[in-house]
Amino acid sequence: MSAITFSLSAGPDIASRRFLHSSSSFQFNQATTTTAAAANRIQIPHLLLRTTRMLTTLASASADNKSKWRAQASSPSSTSSTVIEKETMVNERPDTFLRESDGRPLSDADPGSSVRARFEKMIRETQDSVCAAIEALDGTGKFKEDVWSRPGGGGGISRVLQDGAVFEKAGVNVSVVYGIMPPDAYRAAKPVTGDSSDHHKPGPIPFFAAGVSSVLHPKNPFAPTIHFNYRYFETDAPKDAPGAPRQWWFGGGTDLTPAYIFEEDVKHFHSVQKSACDKFDSSFYPRFKKWCDDYFYIKHRGERRGLGGIFFDDLNNYDQEMLLSFATECANSVIPAYIPIVEKRKDTAFTDQHKEWQQLRRGRYVEFNLVYDRGTTFGLKTGGRIESILVSLPLTCRWEYDHQPEEGSEEWKLLDACINPKEWL
Amino acid sequence: MSAITFSLSAGPDIASRRFLHSSSSFQFNQATTTTAAAANRIQIPHLLLRTTRMLTTLASASADNKSKWRAQASSPSSTSSTVIEKETMVNERPDTFLRESDGRPLSDADPGSSVRARFEKMIRETQDSVCAAIEALDGTGKFKEDVWSRPGGGGGISRVLQDGAVFEKAGVNVSVVYGIMPPDAYRAAKPVTGDSSDHHKPGPIPFFAAGVSSVLHPKNPFAPTIHFNYRYFETDAPKDAPGAPRQWWFGGGTDLTPAYIFEEDVKHFHSVQKSACDKFDSSFYPRFKKWCDDYFYIKHRGERRGLGGIFFDDLNNYDQEMLLSFATECANSVIPAYIPIVEKRKDTAFTDQHKEWQQLRRGRYVEFNLVYDRGTTFGLKTGGRIESILVSLPLTCRWEYDHQPEEGSEEWKLLDACINPKEWL
Repeated sequence: MSAITFSLSAGPDIASRRFLHSSSSFQFNQATTTTAAAANRIQIPHLLLRTTRMLTTLASASADNKSKWRAQASSPSSTSSTVIEKETMVNERPDTFLRESDGRPLSDADPGSSVRARFEKMIRETQDSVCAAIEALDGTGKFKEDVWSRPGGGGGISRVLQDGAVFEKAGVNVSVVYGIMPPDAYRAAKPVTGDSSDHHKPGPIPFFAAGVSSVLHPKNPFAPTIHFNYRYFETDAPKDAPGAPRQWWFGGGTDLTPAYIFEEDVKHFHSVQKSACDKFDSSFYPRFKKWCDDYFYIKHRGERRGLGGIFFDDLNNYDQEMLLSFATECANSVIPAYIPIVEKRKDTAFTDQHKEWQQLRRGRYVEFNLVYDRGTTFGLKTGGRIESILVSLPLTCRWEYDHQPEEGSEEWKLLDACINPKEWL
Repeated sequence: MSAITFSLSAGPDIASRRFLHSSSSFQFNQATTTTAAAANRIQIPHLLLRTTRMLTTLASASADNKSKWRAQASSPSSTSSTVIEKETMVNERPDTFLRESDGRPLSDADPGSSVRARFEKMIRETQDSVCAAIEALDGTGKFKEDVWSRPGGGGGISRVLQDGAVFEKAGVNVSVVYGIMPPDAYRAAKPVTGDSSDHHKPGPIPFFAAGVSSVLHPKNPFAPTIHFNYRYFETDAPKDAPGAPRQWWFGGGTDLTPAYIFEEDVKHFHSVQKSACDKFDSSFYPRFKKWCDDYFYIKHRGERRGLGGIFFDDLNNYDQEMLLSFATECANSVIPAYIPIVEKRKDTAFTDQHKEWQQLRRGRYVEFNLVYDRGTTFGLKTGGRIESILVSLPLTCRWEYDHQPEEGSEEWKLLDACINPKEWL
């Protein structure tokens, strides 16, 4: 979930591409695209749908006219073509990406009553406020915006600031997706109730997913990278399986990846996360802190990507309103948790060696995102918009052979904390 | 198979690490390490052994005293520990990594008669000659060597030159591995003969794998990266399944990854590959050229990593001596195919923009190796020596959001050739 992650839609640049392996489980089914109504549906293979929770780590996807020429590109042969519904680039942000039936807000004062509508409003406000805070802090860089939508509902907004005064690369994306999940996935996701309705086999289930996702990489090696992502997932109740419930869950997290440890910074960051958690449940921070340490694990290195924060997924065993408030609180905590740290470190003098160490740690960031991150790997394999997915990667990074920081050095201390996660509070 | 790839052995630095997911199929079985004789055996899970052909893409692995402290590192919980036999760092290169029973050469003049022995001799000579040619061309940089061996046979030599005058990073590794593959993998690999012996179910099968693997990244953006890898795989005949045959195959290839196209360079490179192939079979070059284009495909980009060359795998349907000679010819062709190109381009003047484009293409190299390359991904997931596997990654690279070369530009031409592979001869 680390990356700016994926979308289920893809631009025209890849619409006619074929995948390498026809036996791949990562293929979309063209069968549902034969009618206008069905054209908005995306079939997701069964194996993937065990991870439908990931679907809500969303990036915006956008058509890209400049690369239309790629549509004619040759590629290794395959027996089935991969067709994902095309989105449309739009010049103006719509008030909502929701379908009418989902309780579209009529005005800012009336956000609609559905969780879908209120979640979309929340993630768009988060995008606005984070981008504004980043631009204000940077002073020079401006976000470039790409907006897209789909006729049947869904769409997104990608914003990227690159090569600013303070930030090397900053991406903040929101997106809303309507899709179809196969019944097996629905059953896998459904809690076992022992109810007789379990024996029904519903057909494909429509789902809704929305999320905000962001990675901010500052230039100064003493200013840490942050990642956050908050997402909501919901299925419709299957019409053909009486009694089978509508499903929903929340996921997300915020985590910090410094190249150097300033204990006061890490404590500040974690204490803001803990405060947000403690407003809802005193078990949240310790649970989600550990979940974060476990998730952002670069197995082949035996290291975490960074110094953690909070991470949760598939949360549905609490009151839905409470979890919506919790996700909102977490998203609202990004700015107070992060901006003061960068403010403090952005002008700290540094040497080439400091920069090289930052670049080496950015190499680790790339390793995690490309090898392990579920949002990224899922997005790459299902034809998400590549530029939105990979905006999570740093502008520059470095791999040295067999680099070993000297024991006791500042670099060593960071590495040690990535290998042996600490309790910061 | 692109990376400097993997080894089945791992240093003490990861010996006590645990993997994240106890349900992972990428786990080694500790049960066979209870006796000295068995300690040399590596159990490979079934799912992986469909890809035992990959086992021959080998990197050297070495113990690393400096990172012993990692052995105590905490990591996410798991119910089974991952223990891979430890190799021993040695100060001098042994004459051979083969077991006595494999026809160890008594002297340079007597390389022994087995294919194993002659293949090992060939890959070590290739390593020596390529490293000598690179050092001579670089003028400044020297290879750092790590040698390791295992008591029961097997071992390797890693050589890395970093930050030279001409080369940013150059890795040339050889290794020899003795392991055990489960019977299912043997059956999957075995040609179907209809013979009654097919119905026997042999126990675990000992295998032998040896290979040379190399990636050379020059500094100058007009000088291309090259990768090559040649490998040989052999199983013992199962003792408990009468009539079941010993199996063997060859794999390998050499491919070129420039940031800019100099047609004469690409033609030269491909013509040397074709000459090597044509000495053996006129079908080889066209087949292996296409195989290369298909293999080094970055699916999510719809691009190849570079401009190809040759690639083959699982080759066993030719005379074994002929294929040994062919692999030798291919390995001997690396220097004449590559060195003259770098010689010609290493001092070409370039701008920051040229360098940035090279760095962006290196980002693609990283994407291929970390997301798709079977040797790399297998190595990372099975606990191979990370530094040997990831030495294939460039020293530095770059990801820009939504970078699009201007149509008709030199950068665009390279990208077009990566999207639409060309016939260069």
